Amino acid sequence: MFTPPPDPAFVFDLDGTLVDSVYQHVFAWQRALEEFDITIPIWRVHRRIGMGSDLLAAAVLRESGHRLTDEEHEQLTQRHGHYYAQLSDSVQPLPGARELLDRLDELGLAWGIATSGAKKETGPVLQMLGVDGRCPVVTGDDVPFAKPDPHLFLAGAEALGVDPSVAIVVGDSTWDMLAARRARAVGVGLLTGGFAASELVEGHAFRIYADPADLLEHLDELGVRVTN
Amino acid sequence: MFTPPPDPAFVFDLDGTLVDSVYQHVFAWQRALEEFDITIPIWRVHRRIGMGSDLLAAAVLRESGHRLTDEEHEQLTQRHGHYYAQLSDSVQPLPGARELLDRLDELGLAWGIATSGAKKETGPVLQMLGVDGRCPVVTGDDVPFAKPDPHLFLAGAEALGVDPSVAIVVGDSTWDMLAARRARAVGVGLLTGGFAASELVEGHAFRIYADPADLLEHLDELGVRVTN
Repeated sequence: MFTPPPDPAFVFDLDGTLVDSVYQHVFAWQRALEEFDITIPIWRVHRRIGMGSDLLAAAVLRESGHRLTDEEHEQLTQRHGHYYAQLSDSVQPLPGARELLDRLDELGLAWGIATSGAKKETGPVLQMLGVDGRCPVVTGDDVPFAKPDPHLFLAGAEALGVDPSVAIVVGDSTWDMLAARRARAVGVGLLTGGFAASELVEGHAFRIYADPADLLEHLDELGVRVTN
Repeated sequence: MFTPPPDPAFVFDLDGTLVDSVYQHVFAWQRALEEFDITIPIWRVHRRIGMGSDLLAAAVLRESGHRLTDEEHEQLTQRHGHYYAQLSDSVQPLPGARELLDRLDELGLAWGIATSGAKKETGPVLQMLGVDGRCPVVTGDDVPFAKPDPHLFLAGAEALGVDPSVAIVVGDSTWDMLAARRARAVGVGLLTGGFAASELVEGHAFRIYADPADLLEHLDELGVRVTN
């Protein structure tokens, strides 16, 4: 007889997956870059959201032929945080996010959050979402490298006590899908970050849902026994 | 002998195609909707940018189960204009936009602009882009129906004195591509509006370029004799 596999465990990205904050981050980066007289077409910033901030900044700067010193890089990241804080009062939970997490609790399934963002900016978001203290949370501050490196999802699975290969990683960006694959987890994509389904499929998402509400509606597609 | 076809003529969309204004429009709609206590996930607004404002508003309201009176619809559109005006000082020409239009002038090729936007908000954008008075401009105010209806591109081709079927329509959104097809024009997509290449290809774009600079670099792919 084979050994039955463990129950699925969910590791969620935060920004753009559970809360509607991607576009605020896009604007905050653009405004921070403006302070350095750097104009980057906004879609290029959007396509990098979900990466760790160091990689994001390096990518958009290289693409536009700019260079910053380490100190300026640090300042740029701080200014992003400053502008994001100004915009964050408009950030709301995505449709079905709270209901999905409540349902996983009812079903007795483990879930956690793994975000490239800094711990400082994550706290208020978790409170707003109503999940503060309810689950393991891994932030960019807890690991040496954020997405698309696999560290965050490896740490998230470890915090849930499961092997990463049985974790279901739910994210909205290409970088979530790549990091999920590198962690040997199964990636599931949501359209809530403004990436197209095709971009997530190119990143080897196994399933695509519009938003957390749509995922909740189709939990059985992921092998969750919702009739129990 | 066959009758040689006329030279290609270009009809450009404005927002997201020649100027980097899509994300400002997204935010302006979100803020306007907030005034009516309507929360719409931001990606759903983004995916509708490029439509005429009446269709955009109707689509996102229906999707979220809200209804507004005709008067409230009018107010909503006005508030979008108000918030967009606040954000429009951050709008810049997209990379290569000015150079592309200058090059078409050098080559003696006809070009014009067809935008779903209102005439009032289009004027300052054309001035910033440096094209005011240089080309025919058709706005949402000039036609009964904006994109994805074909009226704007039909009117744009007529203003250039060409049959719509020989016009090359350049746009950044699904709605440009659909309107181009319905006008029997050839659609060419740019990634500058934050739509994925696949979304533009699904809209039957014949070629995809990153931005106006990339299109300028590859004008010969569209049958433009750039060596003359």
